[in-house]
Parts: sequence; structure tokens; C-alpha cells
Amino acid sequence: MIREIILTTTSQEGEIHLAPMGVHLLDEERWLIMPFHPSRTLENLIHTGVAVMNVCEDVRIFAGCLTGRRSWPTVPAAKVQGHRLVDALTHVELSLENFDEDPVRPRCVTRTVHMEQHAPFLGFNRAQSAVLEAAILASRLDRLSAEKIRTEMAIHEIALEKTGGLREREAWDWVSDKIRAYLEG
Amino acid sequence: MIREIILTTTSQEGEIHLAPMGVHLLDEERWLIMPFHPSRTLENLIHTGVAVMNVCEDVRIFAGCLTGRRSWPTVPAAKVQGHRLVDALTHVELSLENFDEDPVRPRCVTRTVHMEQHAPFLGFNRAQSAVLEAAILASRLDRLSAEKIRTEMAIHEIALEKTGGLREREAWDWVSDKIRAYLEG
Repeated sequence: MIREIILTTTSQEGEIHLAPMGVHLLDEERWLIMPFHPSRTLENLIHTGVAVMNVCEDVRIFAGCLTGRRSWPTVPAAKVQGHRLVDALTHVELSLENFDEDPVRPRCVTRTVHMEQHAPFLGFNRAQSAVLEAAILASRLDRLSAEKIRTEMAIHEIALEKTGGLREREAWDWVSDKIRAYLEG
Repeated sequence: MIREIILTTTSQEGEIHLAPMGVHLLDEERWLIMPFHPSRTLENLIHTGVAVMNVCEDVRIFAGCLTGRRSWPTVPAAKVQGHRLVDALTHVELSLENFDEDPVRPRCVTRTVHMEQHAPFLGFNRAQSAVLEAAILASRLDRLSAEKIRTEMAIHEIALEKTGGLREREAWDWVSDKIRAYLEG
């Protein structure tokens, strides 16, 4: 089962990097992260040996990372030399336990060092899921047909319109602008 | 912004009723619930003046309520004469504050009496959203074309296959069996 979260890692120079990522819960304490080669997430994770998993429901952060809006407020983590997002509902501080090299996506097994809940999750919102699906489409444009992109966006837009709030609509606009520019370009 | 939750209400005879529902957060303390006329949820809410909002990520409960599987474990609520789902990540106990009659969907404004977090939310899972979307399709079959149903189910099935766990697959099977029976019947 894969969870869509924002992973924060820190470079040797102290620069914080945010990346939306699907992570696998292996058991109660271990998460499998598979960043692509090359990526800043992978570099940072190898160099520092730590990462922070941010459970966010502000989908602007997911949409923002895909559309050049990567400045979201962070604070230092509690137990590891890393940072968490201020808006995380829950954050999990992770240490790298095992690294299995691969030319495309190495398997990084991490262990929970510390977890904190900051705000309650108040239930599924279909518009948030719609933005997430649109963001995933937007990250794979060169591998999809224009027809498939348009069909799926039209379906997701219905849920967005019916159930979204301001945050979801703003995030949707960022992603759909990117998709429109691609299709028209 | 609409949250998809499981509302538990109790009849005058003490029978517990579960219903998947979209509820609107009006402000920090008040939720708008609009059950259909006639429905057990509406009857119970009017008679008892209370309800419990269960934030669940076990999508089998949503899919189950739509496919005749309504027996999910509950325990008594803390502050109101009601019950909450054992598997709720968070539950919110509500009292009816204002009732605005309507022939189709009366507007029930409720106020938070008590809230408890039981388990952390660990992040979006695309398969859970896919099951939720499929369940919504399954609840509106008579108003949708077979082509629209098939197109949307095919899209959601991809996310289910890529990211789901056992719970999500079981819930998906319940909903897709119902849809298949309808389309073939």
C-alpha cells in the first residue's frame, strides 16, 4: 500500500528539499522509499542518512512542487538533523537503515525514529484526490496521449467543483495551467 | 469544502445506523449535514438530536454500507448518547443545533460537543480515493450511462492496482461486483 506524502531532505550545505513521493509502509516501523536516480532527494538521503515524511492534506504543496512553487514553511525536526513542514498533519522522522542500489530507483529502507501528530485528519475530500490525480498526470505528460489527459482531467474536475475549497481550487489551477500549456504548446 | 465520512446515528429503540455522507465544515465548531428525506439518518438525528462523525480510512466501511455490509464494530460515544466506529481515526460527537426543513434535503446544522483522535492519518492513498469514487458511481447508477460508468471505473482501477492494499482491493471488489451486476442485469 502506497502513501502519497511530501518528503523533506536536507543537503550537506543545509538546503531543504521538498519532494512529493509515494512511499510503502513495510511494517509498523519501516518505510520503503524509492527515489529516482539522479535526484536531490536520493543525494540528500544518502549523504545525511535521514529524511522526514510529511503527511499533508494541503494539496497546494503537492501541486506547488510540480509547478515551481517549492517554498513552503518548515521547522527543524525533533530528533533528526532535518526539517518538517509546518502544515503537516503528522510527520515521521526517518533514518536510512538499508540501501539497495539500482540504476533507476534504488530501494531505501528507512526506520521511524520519531512521529508527531499536529492536527486531526477530518476525512476524505474528493477535490484533494482530484488535485493529486491531476498532479500525477502533469508529472507524466510526455508518456500520455492528449485524449487520455483530457478525459481524465474532465472527470477529476467534476469532483473538484463539487467538493473543493479555496486551497483545492488554487492547487487545481496551478496543475491545469501546466497541463494546458503542454497541450497547447 | 466537503468531507466524506461515516455518520452514526441511533434510533429511539437504540439501533445503530451507519451512513456514508458528505458533510460541510461551516466553521471551527459547526458541521452542516444534509440527509435525504426520507432516511434513517434524518429520522434518528431529529429524534435524538445527536450524531457521530467517524473519520475512517478503511474504505471497506464506505463500500460495505453501499453493498449490504453494515455491521462494523462500534463503541459508545464519550459525551453524547450515540456510538462511534472502533476503526475511526478521529471521531466527532455532534449535537443538532439548527434544523431547516426542506422537501428533499433538510439542512441540519450541528455543533462539535467532543472530538477524539484514535490513530494517525498516514497520508493519501490513491486506491482509497478510487474506491470512494467507485462507491459514489455505484450509488448513482440509474442516473449514469453505461459508457461513463465503464470509462470512470477503468481509470480508477489503475490507481487501485498500483497503490492499493488488501483492504482497498476487497472494498473495490464489493463495489465493482455491484456495478457489474447492474450493467449486466
